[in-house]
Order: sequence, then C-alpha cells, then structure tokens
Amino acid sequence: MQIAILLYDRFTSLDAVGPFELLARLPGAETVLVAKEAGPVRNDQGNLALVADRSLAEVPRPDILVVPGGPGSRVAMHDPEILAWLRTADASSTWTTSVCTGSLVLAGAGLLKGRRATSHWLALDELVPLGAEPTGERVVFDGKYVTAAGVSSGIDMALHLIGRVAGDATAQTIQLLTEYDPQPPYDAGSPDRAPAAIVAHWRDRSEKVLAEQQD
Amino acid sequence: MQIAILLYDRFTSLDAVGPFELLARLPGAETVLVAKEAGPVRNDQGNLALVADRSLAEVPRPDILVVPGGPGSRVAMHDPEILAWLRTADASSTWTTSVCTGSLVLAGAGLLKGRRATSHWLALDELVPLGAEPTGERVVFDGKYVTAAGVSSGIDMALHLIGRVAGDATAQTIQLLTEYDPQPPYDAGSPDRAPAAIVAHWRDRSEKVLAEQQD
Repeated sequence: MQIAILLYDRFTSLDAVGPFELLARLPGAETVLVAKEAGPVRNDQGNLALVADRSLAEVPRPDILVVPGGPGSRVAMHDPEILAWLRTADASSTWTTSVCTGSLVLAGAGLLKGRRATSHWLALDELVPLGAEPTGERVVFDGKYVTAAGVSSGIDMALHLIGRVAGDATAQTIQLLTEYDPQPPYDAGSPDRAPAAIVAHWRDRSEKVLAEQQD
Repeated sequence: MQIAILLYDRFTSLDAVGPFELLARLPGAETVLVAKEAGPVRNDQGNLALVADRSLAEVPRPDILVVPGGPGSRVAMHDPEILAWLRTADASSTWTTSVCTGSLVLAGAGLLKGRRATSHWLALDELVPLGAEPTGERVVFDGKYVTAAGVSSGIDMALHLIGRVAGDATAQTIQLLTEYDPQPPYDAGSPDRAPAAIVAHWRDRSEKVLAEQQD
C-alpha cells in the first residue's frame, strides 16, 4: 500500500505531519511526501521546510492520497499540474483525503462535486461554489472521499481511516504508541465553544482577506 | 522571543511538528529548527526529512528550547555536541522542554536531576537512572522544565506553555485556529485505557528491545 502526502508552497506543517505520523505506522504501508518537484517545500510561515522525496510524476498511483491545507491551497487549487495529478491519482486511489483547506484543492480538481465535505471552519463557505456540500463535522466520509476540519483534525481523520483500512486493533495500537490521549487545557478548539469575541474577530478578519482577494 | 526545536537523526516527526505548529504562532516569536548541521534530518522511519535551517552553533541562546523524542534519542542522549549545546542553551533559556523520549536527552544532559518529568509511557522507567522522577501525567511543569508524554502530547504541552507565556486568550486563539478540538474515534491513547492485550504486547516488546540493547 502506498500513501502519498502532497506538499506545495505555503502548506501548513501539522496538516501534513499529523496524518503522516499515524498513517505511516500502518503495517506494510510505504508513505511518501510528494510535490511538483522533489526537494524542500516551505510552510505557510516560511520557518519550516519538509522534503518532498519524490516528484508527482514518480508517484502516479498512490492507494491513499492526503492533501494538507494552508494559505498556499488557494494557489494549489488553480495549479494545472497539481490538479492533473490529483485527478489521475484519484482515478485509481482507494481513499482520497484532505485536511483543512486541502479540501479546496480536491474541490478545485472537481473531486468533491455533490459530496459532503469539510474544511477549516473559516473556509467552509468556500466549498459551496466548488460544488461540495460543507458540513461542520470534524471528519467527513463520503464514499472514498474523506475530508477533515482545520489543521489538527488530520490526526483524528488518520485514526478513522486506519480503523477502516486495517481494523480497530491496529488503530488502537497506533493511538497508544503515539499516546493520542488529548488533554487540551482549554476548550476553545471549535467556533461553537471558543470565546465569542475571538471567533468574531477571526471571522471578520477572514472575510476582509477574502474580500481583498476578490477585489 | 526565539524558539529552537532540536532535530537529530531518527527523531519522531509529530513530536517536533506538533509543538512547532502551535508555538510558531506565538506573536513575535521566531521559531527555528536546529540540528548539529543545517540541512535535512531524517525521521525514525526514514520516510520523512525536515530541514534544520540552522546549526546548533548559530542558535546558542534560544528563549524556548524543545527537544522531540524518537528512537534516535538513545543516541542523541550520549552525543557530546548535543549535550553541550543543551547545557549552554538551558543556562539562559526561559523554558526548557521536551516531548516523548526527548526527556531522556534533557536528562542525559543532567538537566532533570531531582525534577518531576514525563516521557513516552514505554520509556518512563528510563528516567530513573538519569536522576529524574517520572510521573504518568501528560504534561509536567517543574520550574522552567516542561516535559510531555508520548508523540502527540507535545500539542497539549504547547497550549499549556502558550498560556503561561502569552495568556489564556492567545492560547485559546491558537487552539481555535488550529481547530484543536480532538475527537479520537477510540479511547486507546493511554496504557490505562487501551485494550490490555495491546498494552501487554508492547510492554513485552519494549522490555526485550531494552534487554537486547543492554546485552
């Protein structure tokens, strides 16, 4: 089984490495980071580079495909080379997945038309013009398409997926070995429960950024 | 504020990138991945390389120091160059932290003597001969020394630390933007609650590995 995690300029590092860490522990899996060209790819803040060990052309038919999010997703979602690779890879994949605004890239490739999907809470509305049906759930399965909410949700998605691919015992083993027993000191991880002023500030800021992009 | 995350051969990727993703969002922080030499550093499975943007010599006095774990920690904890850097960096750090078996490296540098500390659940006992007092908690503060349990626990540690450094509202903001609202589909993330047979298998395997190393 081959698992490909797509990197592109200005991806968000935890979007990629969260699911990587868990999925790469699937027995018998080969997990590979891919990008348009092999070599270092920089994250959204420019302060971290992950190495793509292979180019897209070298990994045409992964069984599981993971697209992380990040500010660069708004460029990647219009990149002909990335979209062509996604469509080809998806044609033979067992699972096609995304984390955060990675779902915008999948949707940009036309892969989420008429499908239930999720994204970062600030980007959910952007799925609509791309033909997907946004939901506020953390991990959404629709056929072989699996989308996860913002950044850290890729870890939950990976556990769900491992359960489907290899069974509960393997998923529980990987949860135990990565000691994924979350104990956040605050309950602010979703817009439903974070302090209202913080949510409002970021909704406002996000709308302004989108408005500027559309000007 | 400068945050340095140490990389070494055969580190575990999520140990480093979990806290990186949250800490790097601290307003005004410069976050930098460091290693003995600048350049790509490979993880425990050999299937991911993160780039160290600077050498240890270039980052002598970080304010916050993060040491991830991984199988390579058993080598790093005896590496004179890494230990010397840790001791020097610790002499002026505000916070000295670790994730998973990164605590063995801190302890190897003599920094956890007489201190309460944690590590991956399978490595807790190894802290004892190094002079630390292991606890089963997920995140342990003892003065400026903060240690976290296995792999994914670095995310919880980062949120605790951000709260201390920048206040609750900043920590809640970062939790919201990374959508850290964990919903694991299993409750197997700690040895207290994972299926007993899985826990026993890994305890047994871990003891055999340690016994072989000591032969």
